[in-house]
Amino acid sequence: MKSHTKYLTFNIPARMGFENITPQVEQAVRDSGVREGLVLVNAMHITASVFINDNESGLHHDYQKWLEQLAPFDPSPTRYQHNRTGEDNADAHMKRQIMGREVVIAITNGKLDFGPWEQIFYGEFDGWRAKRVLIKVIGE
Amino acid sequence: MKSHTKYLTFNIPARMGFENITPQVEQAVRDSGVREGLVLVNAMHITASVFINDNESGLHHDYQKWLEQLAPFDPSPTRYQHNRTGEDNADAHMKRQIMGREVVIAITNGKLDFGPWEQIFYGEFDGWRAKRVLIKVIGE
Amino acid sequence: MKSHTKYLTFNIPARMGFENITPQVEQAVRDSGVREGLVLVNAMHITASVFINDNESGLHHDYQKWLEQLAPFDPSPTRYQHNRTGEDNADAHMKRQIMGREVVIAITNGKLDFGPWEQIFYGEFDGWRAKRVLIKVIGE
Repeated sequence: MKSHTKYLTFNIPARMGFENITPQVEQAVRDSGVREGLVLVNAMHITASVFINDNESGLHHDYQKWLEQLAPFDPSPTRYQHNRTGEDNADAHMKRQIMGREVVIAITNGKLDFGPWEQIFYGEFDGWRAKRVLIKVIGE
Repeated sequence: MKSHTKYLTFNIPARMGFENITPQVEQAVRDSGVREGLVLVNAMHITASVFINDNESGLHHDYQKWLEQLAPFDPSPTRYQHNRTGEDNADAHMKRQIMGREVVIAITNGKLDFGPWEQIFYGEFDGWRAKRVLIKVIGE
Repeated sequence: MKSHTKYLTFNIPARMGFENITPQVEQAVRDSGVREGLVLVNAMHITASVFINDNESGLHHDYQKWLEQLAPFDPSPTRYQHNRTGEDNADAHMKRQIMGREVVIAITNGKLDFGPWEQIFYGEFDGWRAKRVLIKVIGE
């Protein structure tokens, strides 16, 4: 069994934002030499996500508006007890649960085995600082 | 390490609907010859889900009603920018994030290592057309 | 390829509650002897979750309040058809979809490859009875 580990770092210049990381994951799969296996891609921070969806800016706008409705940003300690700790990002911990921590993708014939529109995104919900993503490839 | 890849196709005759795909995943695990390992099952389309929950029609009705409240279908471009692209399915991209893209299941002694009520479902949120599900088995 | 399987049992003395299971997962990884690979940790019951987030009690309070708003407990069969079956836990099936069934974690150099704040939690949404969690380690 082969394995390959790669770390990416992102510093999103906004509270919320999405970045297409499909090319970096494809590169890690090529670097691994794995032809048949799995690749795990996960946020290493708990106010960020890795998810698979459409590379369409209107949809990304809609996701941000929708997440803000489901879990509004509110730095006060009234709505969220977490914000009594000196943090202001309780909402980001909730947005991340909706969008998910990780994706697991099949590798077939040395490539990401994707449907026609699948793209991998890093999702930031508490930005303006460096955060890491982990790529782990296993297989043969 | 062994691996096995299988594609399923579904054409759900409704906008929203759930189909139990546990038998097909069990068959893929048997076909793989894997005794100890993991199986990934994922929707290959971004307005569909694969999830594990109860095989109970009342609950499936409840899920649909609940998802419709959290992310209402609205083909107009007013609520969702994505629907300015000619699509009408922005809501389906949101419902899919709630229900998830994929499941990863342990294989122990050649079988899906499941609790008493776990069943695997394909979840469709923008139906009336053919979409694929990927099953990837790895292990030994 | 090595594999290792471990089952944990929890009986949470409340309808909803979260328990940090990181030490048990770390122990299972040590017991497996795997240096490079993946570990799957999943709830084996469909009204419970395994998720990764912050070990902060205020945030856990916020999650419970938030989940109760998104999917309120209501034992009557009026809001939820599932509760016509004699169950009262339809809300728990929804809360579990928000928080997720499972996590997949990379193992690097024999350890969980975690960011600074990542901790693994069992999430219970219909407690007062014994339920199981599965840990499956694969790798080399």
